[in-house]
Amino acid sequence: MRKFEEKTIATEQIFDGRVIKVQVDEVTLPNGKTATRELVKHPGAVAIIPITSEGKIVMVEQFRKPLERSIVEIPAGKLEPGEKPELTAIRELEEETGYGAMDLDFIQSFATSPGFADEVIHLYVARNLFEIAQPASLDEDEFVELMEVSIEEAEQLVKEQRIFDAKTILAIMWAKNNLVK
Amino acid sequence: MRKFEEKTIATEQIFDGRVIKVQVDEVTLPNGKTATRELVKHPGAVAIIPITSEGKIVMVEQFRKPLERSIVEIPAGKLEPGEKPELTAIRELEEETGYGAMDLDFIQSFATSPGFADEVIHLYVARNLFEIAQPASLDEDEFVELMEVSIEEAEQLVKEQRIFDAKTILAIMWAKNNLVK
Repeated sequence: MRKFEEKTIATEQIFDGRVIKVQVDEVTLPNGKTATRELVKHPGAVAIIPITSEGKIVMVEQFRKPLERSIVEIPAGKLEPGEKPELTAIRELEEETGYGAMDLDFIQSFATSPGFADEVIHLYVARNLFEIAQPASLDEDEFVELMEVSIEEAEQLVKEQRIFDAKTILAIMWAKNNLVK
Repeated sequence: MRKFEEKTIATEQIFDGRVIKVQVDEVTLPNGKTATRELVKHPGAVAIIPITSEGKIVMVEQFRKPLERSIVEIPAGKLEPGEKPELTAIRELEEETGYGAMDLDFIQSFATSPGFADEVIHLYVARNLFEIAQPASLDEDEFVELMEVSIEEAEQLVKEQRIFDAKTILAIMWAKNNLVK
């Protein structure tokens, strides 16, 4: 797990933001030479595949400033400091969809951009959903629109690139392989 | 595609690195209020699923500084300015594996971290591989070890978290659904 390890010689802090931090590390390479590594530090996130009683996936459409357009994604959100991922998952599911879940199962964790960022997403499936009477609301700078899509509709949205992010494409493949009989 | 659009009022350049740029945008929200968005600009990348004549996937193990460990991934690399993704794919396949491919087919493009980065990966499958006598070499700060793994072995590596990134997990699912009869 430490093959070709790059040891840090020096760290320069570049940016300490609300969501991300940025630093440049000087490292020693396996051949003894040095190189720089530009690193984005992210708190990590959860993503949830909420499955309705009709076998549809609840998704949210939202504007993503880095892409300068809105895309359709499974619900997701950042970990708060010290928060356990499954609690983040329950919180974000409620905030983004208004649903609670009788069953929440962990699927797997994965890094999104290991070349430059440490972000890890913890993926869950939420089943036996119920509507929460007065759900916690979104952050005040979040605007999302809810959709419930079948797996076939989701695959069509992938073709049209309205679904365009790795976690959601991975989630649809997982749902197709594990939920469709 | 522009639902809930966030219009940029001002942009502050934070960092202009070798790989990434970082900026903070002040934006107008759909409700007229303002907010800040921290954005990582990335040149984009390709990833390749190289399939051998035995149906194995060629993968590379490399140290990923953001994760502080080595992981097993499908070959991938950043786009050079103005470079067409399929040429990047051919170049990175040669540099990282020593293979050329008689057939290179586009699968799909996806954003890796749409909440804070604009990185898009273009995913290809490479078939009918041949060894290149004197392949172009890696960048001088790149160290990778080659592996050829069956889909079953790849799924085991995912369970062990030696495979840990979204693009490679997505690639294994794609290969299982599209290549295994």
